[in-house]
Amino acid sequence: MTLNSPADLRACSEDQLQQVCDETRGFLIDTVAKIGGHLAAGLGTVELTTALHYVFNTPDDRLVWDIGHQAYPHKILTGRRDQLHTIRQQGGLSGFLKRSESEYDTFGAGHSSTSISAALGMAVAAAQQKLDRDVIAVIGDGALTAGMAFEALNNAGDMDANVLVILNDNDMSISPNVGALKNYLTKLMTGPTVSSVRRSTKKALSSIPPVRDYARRWEEHIKGMILPSTLFEEMGFYYAGPIDGHDIDTLVTTLRNLKDIEGPRFLHIVTKKGKGFEPAEHAPIKYHGVSPFNPTTGEFGKKAKVRSYTDVFSDWLCDMAKLDEKLIGITPAMREGSGLVRFSEEYPERYFDVAIAEQHALTFAAGMACDGQKPVVAIYSTFLQRAYDQLIHDVSVQDLDVMLAIDRAGLVGADGATHAGVFDYSYLRCIPDCVIYAPSDEAECRDMLYSAYQHVGLTAVRYPRGAGIGAQERQDMQTIPLGTAQIVREGQHVAILSFGTLLPAVQLAAEKLNATVVNMRFVKPLDEALLHKLAAQYDLLVTVEENVIAGGAGSGVNEFLAANALATATLNLGLPDRYIDHGTQTAQLAQCGLDSEGIEASIKASPFFRPSHEKQQKTV
Amino acid sequence: MTLNSPADLRACSEDQLQQVCDETRGFLIDTVAKIGGHLAAGLGTVELTTALHYVFNTPDDRLVWDIGHQAYPHKILTGRRDQLHTIRQQGGLSGFLKRSESEYDTFGAGHSSTSISAALGMAVAAAQQKLDRDVIAVIGDGALTAGMAFEALNNAGDMDANVLVILNDNDMSISPNVGALKNYLTKLMTGPTVSSVRRSTKKALSSIPPVRDYARRWEEHIKGMILPSTLFEEMGFYYAGPIDGHDIDTLVTTLRNLKDIEGPRFLHIVTKKGKGFEPAEHAPIKYHGVSPFNPTTGEFGKKAKVRSYTDVFSDWLCDMAKLDEKLIGITPAMREGSGLVRFSEEYPERYFDVAIAEQHALTFAAGMACDGQKPVVAIYSTFLQRAYDQLIHDVSVQDLDVMLAIDRAGLVGADGATHAGVFDYSYLRCIPDCVIYAPSDEAECRDMLYSAYQHVGLTAVRYPRGAGIGAQERQDMQTIPLGTAQIVREGQHVAILSFGTLLPAVQLAAEKLNATVVNMRFVKPLDEALLHKLAAQYDLLVTVEENVIAGGAGSGVNEFLAANALATATLNLGLPDRYIDHGTQTAQLAQCGLDSEGIEASIKASPFFRPSHEKQQKTV
Repeated sequence: MTLNSPADLRACSEDQLQQVCDETRGFLIDTVAKIGGHLAAGLGTVELTTALHYVFNTPDDRLVWDIGHQAYPHKILTGRRDQLHTIRQQGGLSGFLKRSESEYDTFGAGHSSTSISAALGMAVAAAQQKLDRDVIAVIGDGALTAGMAFEALNNAGDMDANVLVILNDNDMSISPNVGALKNYLTKLMTGPTVSSVRRSTKKALSSIPPVRDYARRWEEHIKGMILPSTLFEEMGFYYAGPIDGHDIDTLVTTLRNLKDIEGPRFLHIVTKKGKGFEPAEHAPIKYHGVSPFNPTTGEFGKKAKVRSYTDVFSDWLCDMAKLDEKLIGITPAMREGSGLVRFSEEYPERYFDVAIAEQHALTFAAGMACDGQKPVVAIYSTFLQRAYDQLIHDVSVQDLDVMLAIDRAGLVGADGATHAGVFDYSYLRCIPDCVIYAPSDEAECRDMLYSAYQHVGLTAVRYPRGAGIGAQERQDMQTIPLGTAQIVREGQHVAILSFGTLLPAVQLAAEKLNATVVNMRFVKPLDEALLHKLAAQYDLLVTVEENVIAGGAGSGVNEFLAANALATATLNLGLPDRYIDHGTQTAQLAQCGLDSEGIEASIKASPFFRPSHEKQQKTV
Repeated sequence: MTLNSPADLRACSEDQLQQVCDETRGFLIDTVAKIGGHLAAGLGTVELTTALHYVFNTPDDRLVWDIGHQAYPHKILTGRRDQLHTIRQQGGLSGFLKRSESEYDTFGAGHSSTSISAALGMAVAAAQQKLDRDVIAVIGDGALTAGMAFEALNNAGDMDANVLVILNDNDMSISPNVGALKNYLTKLMTGPTVSSVRRSTKKALSSIPPVRDYARRWEEHIKGMILPSTLFEEMGFYYAGPIDGHDIDTLVTTLRNLKDIEGPRFLHIVTKKGKGFEPAEHAPIKYHGVSPFNPTTGEFGKKAKVRSYTDVFSDWLCDMAKLDEKLIGITPAMREGSGLVRFSEEYPERYFDVAIAEQHALTFAAGMACDGQKPVVAIYSTFLQRAYDQLIHDVSVQDLDVMLAIDRAGLVGADGATHAGVFDYSYLRCIPDCVIYAPSDEAECRDMLYSAYQHVGLTAVRYPRGAGIGAQERQDMQTIPLGTAQIVREGQHVAILSFGTLLPAVQLAAEKLNATVVNMRFVKPLDEALLHKLAAQYDLLVTVEENVIAGGAGSGVNEFLAANALATATLNLGLPDRYIDHGTQTAQLAQCGLDSEGIEASIKASPFFRPSHEKQQKTV
């Protein structure tokens, strides 16, 4: 039975649905086993996805998934089965939801906790347009810890909007879920589930308004006597659940019941990440995002162990913690991704996973810094956007000593535009006195982490996803003096100012052009003395960075030249004013002209470029 | 009785405290009546402030106020009585908390909802340092609607941190409080307040650990049977209240009891904004922030009615709503400040106050835009920082048609650094395809609002606090073609490119220098054709803006010149790389060299400046 659309699905009888689920699950495992991708989350939502498309009239009814890791079954059931093998690859399906990819993807995501807000917006739009449309948001228990989810619940619960929020509770986001809310949900799951009884009573009586009012009061009364109302009821939602999210019959029945109720509703379902694939059920974090594996045993192919920048940070953090007991490590729910596993094991008292709560993470760090601790916030560049105000208002305005270890900066490959960390130079550089370190390799990254830690004030060390060039880190760390660049190649006429890990590509291009190369090391403050010299000495200064050009590191060089009345010609190379779709990092960089060929070509195309006839050169 | 410090206060007997409160309140009213400032919030916290400093050992115990509008009594009682008359004035006390101002100001603020995070950070720091220190956060019911407060509660409730959160519940932030949480708090206030009984039982038993455990279980059991647990208990807090926040005896007793309990505690007090000054009790919004008034009658002096940019937006929004029924107006709890009062009255179905929830506001707007509504989000520049990720990830990545009306941009005067909107050009300009309008006067602002509304995609119209130059708005609005600048004065050698409302100062300077003046009108996209011409024609291009130079509008001009190999010299004038303290807007601008004298002097100081001997000129 191959279904090509939700219409096909809705033509099935209810007793065929389990078969649909089994086939979808099998197809999902087989496909991801071949090509890699996100697995455990999708396995947990096979029944939910099937039930939703079966009961609701998608795409006219709006189904809003949160993040999208769990949306592979949704893609399979909405006409994208045949393309699933292209997922996360250049030109292929997105790993997340994407509006331009399908009319069934009503709201794109990648970052967490946006679904309730978006669904509420759609529900209001439907009400404005007098459309009889159901709007459903599906959100995980991890995503529910983010403040914006609470903001949306607070707004929705008071608005009498026609929105159904489904909590997909698997006690897990990417890292294990933490916080008071998780404890609360656990309590709900083990408590008496009489809410379905209340549901049907209410439904039966709801057609006659006065009786309905009476029923509601009666229900409130009984509820207060028998069982405490849930947090979601306190927030103004009609709460149903918890129910078994892998029981397709119960799901279909419950969704049908809820469809008939108006106003803000909340369905709490309990699922298991990795459901139906034993290795993933036992190790959902390991099978969250995977490389190809054996679909029978779950075994992964042998991979060369590559040392990533995340590993560099991970080891540095533990080494530094040993040197300074004031060090505190903070992560907003990315223990694995940010490289805090070892630290959390070796220094559990100094390790704080604050849940998906970037805003809180920064201000929590600020509070600690007020009282003499030294917080290091490990965060992805793209997620730091969530804490921008806290960075300015709580850390920078008060000149507090907080350090950011910014991972996944620049283009990030398969995760695509939503996860790219391509704005941080711009949005950090404008913050007064914010020191921004741009390591060019692993060894420098370690020294910069050390240097940033020593520096009192707001500092950021910014490094990319994945492996470096294999530069050997020094165990004894060295302090890099603030705002000092390093000439790494001397050539003629052109000086290329390289920020961060594009340095090898820059060096290759420079060999061809006999250009001087400077590893700038700092985006802010710049090495002003050196810039004065370079401006006097060269025809053309070329800046290269893996950030958008607008407001980026090169822009800082332009500003410096203007401020000092240095009229040397500049060429700013960096990312363009558009979003870059998923693909390999290498392909993405090439597409943006930031591989060595691209850099060389751009420089050659400058009217200020003058070929060097001097072939002698030295590498410092 | 004049108290100069909390130590003096703690030397008082309990029966003197009411007198202290009365005198503090009287002094507060008299002072603000003379000089203006924030009144109603402070009147509501006189007893709380007194009780806190009386019971706790400040400043060693950490008292963290949220925002700071309510902190005038705190300033009076912590040695700043004699300076209170200087508040919000250049060189005087800050209108908010400020770490550099007093050791009693443990955490500066201005934006809302940061106190719990900061207090939790301090509590963790105390625990790390094995200090026996109490940490108290005071947060209003309005501030509690922001997601970051929820993030902090979620973290604190699970951490067993020694933090006391005091909810100052006055059913009001600046606008009336909205949302499900408000409804919930109202319910709590009208419900049975047996929690104080539970408190004392627990306290009596808490000294013997096994009994304490039993007591807790017994209490949980009874609680479940008799009354539903509160939301805050569900979040892991020990909840006490609600109690009367104007009853000093009860406050002192309750705080003492809570001081003896360990772990996360939550005290719910009910206060009245404006308490003790009848006019303010009746109109707390009117008396939130005030100009001088008669301390007996509450009457304000007659002020010339000045039309502000906010008024321009307010009228435009209603006019536009009349023309297009798809328009939706959204505010994150700033109905009055953002000029949405008229709209909320004339178009209640299309008006959405989403509470202090900037993140949600943007994604809610994005959801609407997906389904054919046209949302206009009215927001202060400084608060937009709270929604930066949503702007990128939910609006821009998906290329949705959302318009921002950004108020309070640039320097904002008496509110100081925390409220300055001086980064928005930088953090918006790097977002792909974001159109940024910079009106130079009220008439242009209205036309730009109209033009931005027509443009499909993410647009931002950015205007300052306060009055313009009195430029007459056209009732029939005109569309300003995208990316078109306007030459407003023709001179020689130097062209000044002015972004936004500094234009009059630029024009004055240009008269002296016989410089050409261009009203750029767009920060993005730039008028590229004109820039090509100007670069060819002039020795020096000077950019002027009320944003930090780093990454700002001038930086965009630099980038354009570099990208097009135009080697014309530039001079970027804008705000420096530091925070500007409170003072008048005029004084702040002068301090930054952005008055006409400063602009003139900076240009004259440029080595590329060449005095004009051609005295003929024309103004277009």
